[in-house]
Amino acid sequence: MTLGAPTASPPLSVTEHLDRILGSVTRLPAVTIPIAHALNLTLAEDVHAAVSVPSFDNSAMDGYALRRVDAAAATAETPVAFRVVADLPAGSAENPRLGSGEAARIMTGAAVPDDADCIVPIEDTDQGTQTVLISRAPQAAAHIRREGADVRTGDTVLTAGRVLGPRDLAAAAAVGVSDLSVYPAPRVGVLSTGSELREPGTPLERGQIHDSNSLLLAAMIAEGGGIPIQLGSVPDDNNAFEEILRTHADQVDAFVTSGGVSVGAYDIVKAVLAPLGVWFGPVRMQPGKPQGFGRFPVAGEPTTAATGPAIFALPGNPVSVFVSFEAFVRPALLTMAGRSQIFRYTQRVTTSVGWRSPAGRAQYMPTIVDWDDAGTASIRPATAGGSGSYLVASLAKANALALVPEDVTEVFAGDVLTVTLVS
Amino acid sequence: MTLGAPTASPPLSVTEHLDRILGSVTRLPAVTIPIAHALNLTLAEDVHAAVSVPSFDNSAMDGYALRRVDAAAATAETPVAFRVVADLPAGSAENPRLGSGEAARIMTGAAVPDDADCIVPIEDTDQGTQTVLISRAPQAAAHIRREGADVRTGDTVLTAGRVLGPRDLAAAAAVGVSDLSVYPAPRVGVLSTGSELREPGTPLERGQIHDSNSLLLAAMIAEGGGIPIQLGSVPDDNNAFEEILRTHADQVDAFVTSGGVSVGAYDIVKAVLAPLGVWFGPVRMQPGKPQGFGRFPVAGEPTTAATGPAIFALPGNPVSVFVSFEAFVRPALLTMAGRSQIFRYTQRVTTSVGWRSPAGRAQYMPTIVDWDDAGTASIRPATAGGSGSYLVASLAKANALALVPEDVTEVFAGDVLTVTLVS
Repeated sequence: MTLGAPTASPPLSVTEHLDRILGSVTRLPAVTIPIAHALNLTLAEDVHAAVSVPSFDNSAMDGYALRRVDAAAATAETPVAFRVVADLPAGSAENPRLGSGEAARIMTGAAVPDDADCIVPIEDTDQGTQTVLISRAPQAAAHIRREGADVRTGDTVLTAGRVLGPRDLAAAAAVGVSDLSVYPAPRVGVLSTGSELREPGTPLERGQIHDSNSLLLAAMIAEGGGIPIQLGSVPDDNNAFEEILRTHADQVDAFVTSGGVSVGAYDIVKAVLAPLGVWFGPVRMQPGKPQGFGRFPVAGEPTTAATGPAIFALPGNPVSVFVSFEAFVRPALLTMAGRSQIFRYTQRVTTSVGWRSPAGRAQYMPTIVDWDDAGTASIRPATAGGSGSYLVASLAKANALALVPEDVTEVFAGDVLTVTLVS
Repeated sequence: MTLGAPTASPPLSVTEHLDRILGSVTRLPAVTIPIAHALNLTLAEDVHAAVSVPSFDNSAMDGYALRRVDAAAATAETPVAFRVVADLPAGSAENPRLGSGEAARIMTGAAVPDDADCIVPIEDTDQGTQTVLISRAPQAAAHIRREGADVRTGDTVLTAGRVLGPRDLAAAAAVGVSDLSVYPAPRVGVLSTGSELREPGTPLERGQIHDSNSLLLAAMIAEGGGIPIQLGSVPDDNNAFEEILRTHADQVDAFVTSGGVSVGAYDIVKAVLAPLGVWFGPVRMQPGKPQGFGRFPVAGEPTTAATGPAIFALPGNPVSVFVSFEAFVRPALLTMAGRSQIFRYTQRVTTSVGWRSPAGRAQYMPTIVDWDDAGTASIRPATAGGSGSYLVASLAKANALALVPEDVTEVFAGDVLTVTLVS
């Protein structure tokens, strides 16, 4: 047995690695699904109205439909009597003929008879059911919602690229659409590696730790619009690792693994995947230096074809997993999901304390954003221990990631950094 | 048959109605569930570390564990040789004795032998497996992560009230916790009423419309942290409506209905629920004036007891549904889910055009926020037609709700209003 040789790949900058990833992944093929399943997905095709909204002239009030001219003289002192010849609840298909001096009782949303040209609200009547007294002259076309006032058949209601929210689904339903063409949420297999890993809550022996990466990744995938598929954890065994990937390769759009990517003797992820054409090498960042990315070949396909699921091979330490996911995996999954906005908003924030950063590596520091009474933000590291990549419990305290550029080796209080708010 | 009499309840302000709702609903009883199911739920009890993190001194690097004093003279020109007496992959329970001049090969994360006091990274060695040459004198305690450096057993890792994000779940797993006490997501039955309603995509006859409210409500409930349970739509039939509520009353924490709350002859929601003690009356708002709220009595309980599921009886027009949900239902569901932050953030924004607002009613105008090149926001109504409560297709264009106070009857361009960004 020999130690794994240090990688021969030259270090990439964060931007170079991200660009290679985004140059490889594409949005998933669009699928047509029922509206009810489309929340938060990206629309692949414009939605046109199949029916107008409203699709018929209807009443905006509970009241009486009649000819306005017949009630022109009505006042509270001299009400005008109408014979009630029909009763039109919402949903009624009736279109009763109305002669002079005749009215139809009508409920909100019911179709207005063709012979009527206004609605008198019940507040302006005695609410009679055989004969009704109208006590106020109606305005022209009063309280009638016109066919097509909201949208007309054929109008574009939603445009491709839109991320579908509750009101978009309602609009599609209202215009007569039942299915939508969308980019599906990517299905992402999550696999932790390491013989030291035990399930949460189980007793630990010397050398063992609880697997927190699987939960972290699954939750981040879900928050990033993907569908996490938990594949558990595997010990440092090449065959066991490869077998799990092969078993699930045709069921996922991507894999995210943690651990096993460095230069150690037991780095099984690299040992298995590098020969299959997956790139491994250092990225100039802290934490998260050792990274792997490529495609997992599907059985029967040439290994060079970019057809298999994308595979993101992340380092094993939890803070590295978090930072790597934010920097590389999240933008890639959002791309697969058809999003155009794939990056979080950033802002420039002043630091309230200083810290050190390694030369030649971009540092992602988990930080806490504080707001003073005037609403001005400042940041400080979330942990006294700095950016230690194993500080998983402290990581929960952070609400932002501060980016320290490669050429900066010391951050001073008062410096302004680019900060991403994270969930 | 007689027309329903106008309600006798005096109009409430939006604040009065909301206060009555929030005075009635309480957070749901806490439940203990596996970490993996706790994303986005509110923590009910503090989480304390069951184990320290790390739970043992471990190596931060792939390298060699040894006694520092033995390598104090090492340089690149005069490397010091050590006998490799053990091989410690991550997960190993071994604790090998190390004599003078002896080293253990060790991988990142593996437990450091008690006899070693530093780690020499492989970069500073010849990577030997029988004998290793150390080419640089190590620092004291170099590359050892100390037991408890992140958290110690018993430390509070997460505090009650926290909304659990991905890193919180990972932190809980890391400290040896497998289950969390959380306030569950409220289960909310969604029921549209109206004989005019047809399923999305089905052909319409005169007087019929597609049910968009069920989709709108279910999606808003999901986005508000609840679990929507679709109960479909019912025609204007008292018995059918009541039967559905009775069937599901013991399976939900709340009902949200749309339609049937006004003063019309077919307003079945009011007809069924008012005799059971549910409040119905006007709220001084536009849209959304007719509202109902109370408790649906569970079989065998007195009807005055506040023990049954909360019932939100909203008007039937889609814009009214949207506004009513934002104003009343969303804060109530978040309260049930244990959240302390139950309102959306608001901001003050200048209007770029004017519009009219009814006297004595707070107007909720769906608006579009525009940002100019300087990043300054302004708002304009999302629809040319104003706040018409049936404009469901246009409603999708809005990204904000502007609130016009009760006493304002006209908004002028340049006025500043309180605006809520909505999803």
